[in-house]
Amino acid sequence: MTNPTTAVIGAGISGLTSSKMLTDYGVPHTVFETSDRIGGNWAFGNPNGHSSAYRSLHIDTSKHQLSFRDFPMPDSYPDFPHHTQIKKYLDDYATAFGLLDGIEFENGVEHARRLPGGGWELTTQRGERRRYDLLVVANGHHWDPRWPDFPGTFDGIEMHAHHYIDPQTPHDFAGKRIVVVGLGNSAADIAVELSSKALDTELYLSTRSGAWIVPKYVAGQPADKFYKTNPYIPTSWQRKIAQMGQPLMSGRPENLGLPTPNHKFFEAHPTQSVELPLRLGSGDVIPKPNIDSLDGRTVRFTDGTSVDDVDVLVYATGYNITFPFFDPDFISAPDNRIDLYKRMLHPGIDDLLFAGFAQATPTLFPFVEAQARLVGAYAVGRYRPPSPGEMRRVIEEDTRKYTGHMLDRPRHTQQLDYFLYEHDMRVKELPAGARRVAAEGPVTWAGVSEGVAS
Amino acid sequence: MTNPTTAVIGAGISGLTSSKMLTDYGVPHTVFETSDRIGGNWAFGNPNGHSSAYRSLHIDTSKHQLSFRDFPMPDSYPDFPHHTQIKKYLDDYATAFGLLDGIEFENGVEHARRLPGGGWELTTQRGERRRYDLLVVANGHHWDPRWPDFPGTFDGIEMHAHHYIDPQTPHDFAGKRIVVVGLGNSAADIAVELSSKALDTELYLSTRSGAWIVPKYVAGQPADKFYKTNPYIPTSWQRKIAQMGQPLMSGRPENLGLPTPNHKFFEAHPTQSVELPLRLGSGDVIPKPNIDSLDGRTVRFTDGTSVDDVDVLVYATGYNITFPFFDPDFISAPDNRIDLYKRMLHPGIDDLLFAGFAQATPTLFPFVEAQARLVGAYAVGRYRPPSPGEMRRVIEEDTRKYTGHMLDRPRHTQQLDYFLYEHDMRVKELPAGARRVAAEGPVTWAGVSEGVAS
Repeated sequence: MTNPTTAVIGAGISGLTSSKMLTDYGVPHTVFETSDRIGGNWAFGNPNGHSSAYRSLHIDTSKHQLSFRDFPMPDSYPDFPHHTQIKKYLDDYATAFGLLDGIEFENGVEHARRLPGGGWELTTQRGERRRYDLLVVANGHHWDPRWPDFPGTFDGIEMHAHHYIDPQTPHDFAGKRIVVVGLGNSAADIAVELSSKALDTELYLSTRSGAWIVPKYVAGQPADKFYKTNPYIPTSWQRKIAQMGQPLMSGRPENLGLPTPNHKFFEAHPTQSVELPLRLGSGDVIPKPNIDSLDGRTVRFTDGTSVDDVDVLVYATGYNITFPFFDPDFISAPDNRIDLYKRMLHPGIDDLLFAGFAQATPTLFPFVEAQARLVGAYAVGRYRPPSPGEMRRVIEEDTRKYTGHMLDRPRHTQQLDYFLYEHDMRVKELPAGARRVAAEGPVTWAGVSEGVAS
Repeated sequence: MTNPTTAVIGAGISGLTSSKMLTDYGVPHTVFETSDRIGGNWAFGNPNGHSSAYRSLHIDTSKHQLSFRDFPMPDSYPDFPHHTQIKKYLDDYATAFGLLDGIEFENGVEHARRLPGGGWELTTQRGERRRYDLLVVANGHHWDPRWPDFPGTFDGIEMHAHHYIDPQTPHDFAGKRIVVVGLGNSAADIAVELSSKALDTELYLSTRSGAWIVPKYVAGQPADKFYKTNPYIPTSWQRKIAQMGQPLMSGRPENLGLPTPNHKFFEAHPTQSVELPLRLGSGDVIPKPNIDSLDGRTVRFTDGTSVDDVDVLVYATGYNITFPFFDPDFISAPDNRIDLYKRMLHPGIDDLLFAGFAQATPTLFPFVEAQARLVGAYAVGRYRPPSPGEMRRVIEEDTRKYTGHMLDRPRHTQQLDYFLYEHDMRVKELPAGARRVAAEGPVTWAGVSEGVAS
């Protein structure tokens, strides 16, 4: 058998790791990237507009957990690297594995059409039509801002956290009355940065369902060093243990004036911030419940209180999963819900792989690397998925396993535990896929020749 | 007997609490204040130049420990109030106890001369000469910057933390290469504020002897809520217990790149910061040992490393205890060392009291209030100190008790534990002073009439 002609959409962390594994397995492929640079979200000021990084952003996962397993982070890096260091690390990764030559920059995929007999026709930024057997979708899920929809209208500035750069950009926030909406990591970081009394601002933090806030350091060690789910112990027990330890790490959100979380600790993605509790406890950040309505420059909250003369509303309300190159009735992710086998395979479409579509805890980096191993094995015929019916059954089972204990929220639909996932892929799924190949033969490709279509 | 004519120098927290107790005991008195307002250090931008507060300053002690025992902080206050809230609290205190009428604003004491037969002649800002029986010195010890003296010369900007206001004031720090010297609370706060990647600075933190860094919150509670020394248990045991608990609160400073402290935890004033460990762990603050020498724009450190093109040196190196109104050969505090009985009485000068001259842990506020109780009792003849010889013996004993385990550093000479001090004053010293009055009679005053001297 021959390797499939292969295209990868995106040169962020998911596209790069997929490209690296395809290279390792000897599969020629082309990476299509809208920007003039690699790194996606981690390319601060990315000209393609897809980076949500702000100037002061440090990753919230320590380098110990963050490293690709194939490419350890330099010892010289701090525990929590700055986005410039992450970008440098990705540049070094691409160079070390010779990935740059396989990337077509400023030639993103504008449309991907599945051919009747299988295979793909891609229309690119440059207006070319290109055909491939196998398509790897790695266009990321942190670039299309999700906007809330509150009743009423607001006459001040409304912006999404995606566009936040620093206290002067895109607006001069000094002296302003600001409401930040959300309680994820972006909300916490932006609220902390803009609430500094040195900026003479007045900052309100509005949150709907609360969150557990955990510090980045515990007992002088990066807190996530202690985080490693064991696949051989029931996860419900491990959650229980984490819940017992929580009071020692941080207090109850109510003590800080935040709403009672409608979930237990460890049942939804926690917010990592050592500074937010301090700012709340110092009165610099004023907690508020969810927004009830907007009226001119007045923001009304669900507890009946309101704040007048608000200058700026910052929505740190997350991101949509969007595939702008697919026809929406072909594949889309309404409410960020998309049912993929092992978060990678669309039942019934066997020449399509997704990489990077999860909210992996503690971090996306080794998760996309684990997914990339399947990309490589699949392309060279060493992995075969089960039947579409079996895939659908397992999707339901896995959804219960990873998110059954969680809230029904768009941001949580993609939640998963990296350690359980990686163990499942390495110990069970890849060997099972190899056994299926032995029994039924590998997946066959359409046999589309790569090249510019007529 | 009649009350002594009494003058208080300063209307900061020490002068205000002294004035409040004198009022309680019915002792008419005059408070001399150089500024047009009360609050001293806590009057941000104080026109007398004596405030060291920066725009973003929040007190590092929680309101639970901070409150005067006679005047609890409002429930509406956050755990760690902003300096504007502390100022408001002091204003409310002064109003509640009717202290404002007793203060002569913009009429500080420029010179205080002890009269041959006892009593004082004060020369004030307005050029008046005023005479009093009893003088209370409450001019504070956090207003006269202590500058280090490194070999060589520096061609950039040198400034003391006393003059730091915010990232734009007194200099625009954006884009600058900065070395902050020190590891006290001011050094930590300024290093954190100026190291924000949003300011595009490069920030080095140079420290000589290291420090233990403790968070402001532990297990969701203000950390100092757990701090209360028990006077009935040997303090060496209590220090040992605190040392055992330290690893759970925070890691070793070496993990963050800071020098090994040359003292055990709890043996010198710890630095309270949740943000500094994070900034060090994020690479935003680069730790350096002590400065070896200065050469143009180059700063050389004792480990042989150096940093070129430094723009600003910020000395967060503490404050001198200065009595500008005393002739230096009469009373001064070289290296911040001044031997006072119970930190208040100068052996041999029985019509002089000092208030507020200690580095009290956890905070100065209830400490100066405890001292003020002696001011009041002394003025009305209900307290008498022991003989000068006995005072000198006790001074040595107390110095060993409070600072014997500490480093020999100017900032530590004034260290004391509030809980032990307050217990000692209330349970032992004030009753003993009352017994001495019963046995020997009260201290007699010179009988100087208050008023403008001829």
